[in-house]
Amino acid sequence: MAEQIEFDQAHLTLQEITKALENGRFVHVRRQLQDMEPEDIALLLEASPRKIREILWQLTDHEDYGEILDELNEEVKDALVSKMPPEKLAEATEGMDTDDLAYVLRSLPDKLSREVLAQMDAADRLRVETALSYPEDTAGGLMNTDVITIRSDVDIDVVLRYLRIKGELPEATDSLYVVDGSSTLMGHLTLSTLLTSQPDVQVSDVMENADDAISVDTKDSDVASLFERRNWISAPVVDENQYLVGRITIDDVVDVIREDAEHSMMSLAGMDDDEDTFAPVIKSARKRSVWLGANVLAALAAASVSNLFEATLDQMAAIAVLMTIVPSMGGVAGNQTVALVIRGLALGQIGDSNKKQLLYKEAAIGFLNGVLWALIIGGIVILWKGSWLLGSIISAAMLTNLLVAGIAGVTLPIMLKKMKIDPALAGGMALTTVTDVVGLSAFLGLATLLIK
Amino acid sequence: MAEQIEFDQAHLTLQEITKALENGRFVHVRRQLQDMEPEDIALLLEASPRKIREILWQLTDHEDYGEILDELNEEVKDALVSKMPPEKLAEATEGMDTDDLAYVLRSLPDKLSREVLAQMDAADRLRVETALSYPEDTAGGLMNTDVITIRSDVDIDVVLRYLRIKGELPEATDSLYVVDGSSTLMGHLTLSTLLTSQPDVQVSDVMENADDAISVDTKDSDVASLFERRNWISAPVVDENQYLVGRITIDDVVDVIREDAEHSMMSLAGMDDDEDTFAPVIKSARKRSVWLGANVLAALAAASVSNLFEATLDQMAAIAVLMTIVPSMGGVAGNQTVALVIRGLALGQIGDSNKKQLLYKEAAIGFLNGVLWALIIGGIVILWKGSWLLGSIISAAMLTNLLVAGIAGVTLPIMLKKMKIDPALAGGMALTTVTDVVGLSAFLGLATLLIK
Repeated sequence: MAEQIEFDQAHLTLQEITKALENGRFVHVRRQLQDMEPEDIALLLEASPRKIREILWQLTDHEDYGEILDELNEEVKDALVSKMPPEKLAEATEGMDTDDLAYVLRSLPDKLSREVLAQMDAADRLRVETALSYPEDTAGGLMNTDVITIRSDVDIDVVLRYLRIKGELPEATDSLYVVDGSSTLMGHLTLSTLLTSQPDVQVSDVMENADDAISVDTKDSDVASLFERRNWISAPVVDENQYLVGRITIDDVVDVIREDAEHSMMSLAGMDDDEDTFAPVIKSARKRSVWLGANVLAALAAASVSNLFEATLDQMAAIAVLMTIVPSMGGVAGNQTVALVIRGLALGQIGDSNKKQLLYKEAAIGFLNGVLWALIIGGIVILWKGSWLLGSIISAAMLTNLLVAGIAGVTLPIMLKKMKIDPALAGGMALTTVTDVVGLSAFLGLATLLIK
Repeated sequence: MAEQIEFDQAHLTLQEITKALENGRFVHVRRQLQDMEPEDIALLLEASPRKIREILWQLTDHEDYGEILDELNEEVKDALVSKMPPEKLAEATEGMDTDDLAYVLRSLPDKLSREVLAQMDAADRLRVETALSYPEDTAGGLMNTDVITIRSDVDIDVVLRYLRIKGELPEATDSLYVVDGSSTLMGHLTLSTLLTSQPDVQVSDVMENADDAISVDTKDSDVASLFERRNWISAPVVDENQYLVGRITIDDVVDVIREDAEHSMMSLAGMDDDEDTFAPVIKSARKRSVWLGANVLAALAAASVSNLFEATLDQMAAIAVLMTIVPSMGGVAGNQTVALVIRGLALGQIGDSNKKQLLYKEAAIGFLNGVLWALIIGGIVILWKGSWLLGSIISAAMLTNLLVAGIAGVTLPIMLKKMKIDPALAGGMALTTVTDVVGLSAFLGLATLLIK
């Protein structure tokens, strides 16, 4: 049951399936896919190189398409969906939750998406259109419309009988929503209360109030943070008039949490967090070259600094040999701070009230580590190059650069956030540019001044 | 209701509270804390510089201690707990879930932890000791012991009456567990089925089987991945004899998902993901200097390469000016690949079955971007330094280094994982060392060979 075994299993399956496909044993593969859960097929597709992925998709039971698409990474989903005819897609997505269906339809061109909608019955179409009318990254884009509503003036027993007639609850239902005649949310009745109350008690006596309802335009990362801190399983969504419009469930929130956290890691390296691990080469190369282009500017800025000191470099090759050490240490130290600050900003720990203290703290750490590594590297250089002067110069430059790295590591991400630029994306490179320029200037500048 | 407002609110509160504390208005602050939810107090504490944090902790209602401690980041929790007397801690943690209590107790020295346990009643102590007996990062460490069990040979109606007598369900209960006389897990009955079945139906006729039970020694990240893919709210935990020992709920899993994802981001920058944003300076400086020490070796390796070519550097300062560009571009390109591979490894997308395809793909991207940036930077250097030879040399070195970066970006993390070294921690620095050494060797080596 251990997941490690499942992962290994997935790769065993992939190896086996790849071999079976090479030998043309399509019927065998189709049968194997039929035995797998949709979410495991999704993992298999994500782990497959593109050619094999397309063959597997053809061989997959079309009834599972909807559920599989919902589990797929955005880029993989888009690639598969864009090649399907609309009537197939309409068929495949029948019976899906509205939010999941909206997720699938968003990847289609408008025309295709309208065609798929045209194949649905009127009630479903209206629900999906409603979901599509909210931006993807808001509570409206995350919510389902399949909620169970009850009135406050009935007995628990009536509710129990109503549920038995209904025959099934929507997934992840932990509360029924209490509304008045005009759909205004009055409160909710948890299943726990429903199950532990006496049958003759009125709903209004045991329900909880609606203070916690999420507004439809709340940002998805804010929704995630609320769920995380309040330990919710589901929460009602209301519009500006307190009308109940839908319900958000924890399984969709978990995806947001995972994506937000991945976003920081991938962005720091200049990667798009939607990137398919097996994306087409040309597409990936083009996306990544934008980031490399930004780094060219940073690298040229560093080279221009060195260029200012060309005469010094001409005089003494040892300086050229050593000049990469100070920028490298500054970059690493500064990026430690940047990672801490980006996490703090994402978790809401860092704001106007405490940024000054954080700055002092990181500057102090930069100073302490600056002294430590200035001594060590200064010592190494004195032993290696036999020059006290060169050792002292690299020590002074090191201390300066690690201090600057700590300060820039706090201020740059906060500044970028104020300027509405994603600190996770731009923070690392901005920091490295600063530490490269300061590190080189300090080392080469001191060398120029002091070495005659 | 938007979380942004809540975050801003937290910082407004912190500013206000800091001011109130400076003015000695302790009673006012105490009252304000009483109006806040435990999870909001936890965020406030995490966002507070340490001195203010300790005062706030003193002023917080001691009844909330348990819930707040459970919400806190590990380092912050440890710092607060280590200063509390055991009887206070025992009092504060009364009535907490066993898994949450175990989380708090794990930060105590053994002696203190035994003292706290001694203050509890026998049944609670046994439950907590059981939880503590499992490693923290396994299903056993994550689980609660508060499960509701039923027998399979009773009617739905009996179950409903039993729950009414019980009076309350544990948090995040979405299933009751069906066991036989010796506590062996037979299956589960979802609340949805319970609520929609007729009262006279027997549990055995509508329950689901126990195939999905999690084994008690499953790794926590594997548990998280199961929950994420199967959209579970809770899942039963069994020991090697299929005895039901506890239950894992989604709220604890969400913490694991968040921590795992943060781990990759923080580790890539050489940071501990438990690090308190406002940790003591000395402690942080010491932890971070280990990583800087690793980078010293990397930087010295690069300097040693340059040192091999000291004669060339002595001859032409322009080479020294340009020599940082190729390593820089290689580092950035390689780290894009490393981020992609680390995410793929964490999600289980990458394994033996497809690592070769991934290698080809990343090498191809490296080649394409290598050609692109070789041409652009070669052109810039020709215009800047007026030397076709120098331009060609940097182009050739750039192409080589980006190709190597793509290959090393795939192989290093996979190799590290095979060697049981965390690829997120060591991958980025290993990569940068390779691209620095290869980039400098290629550029300076070609320059030495071709420029006379």
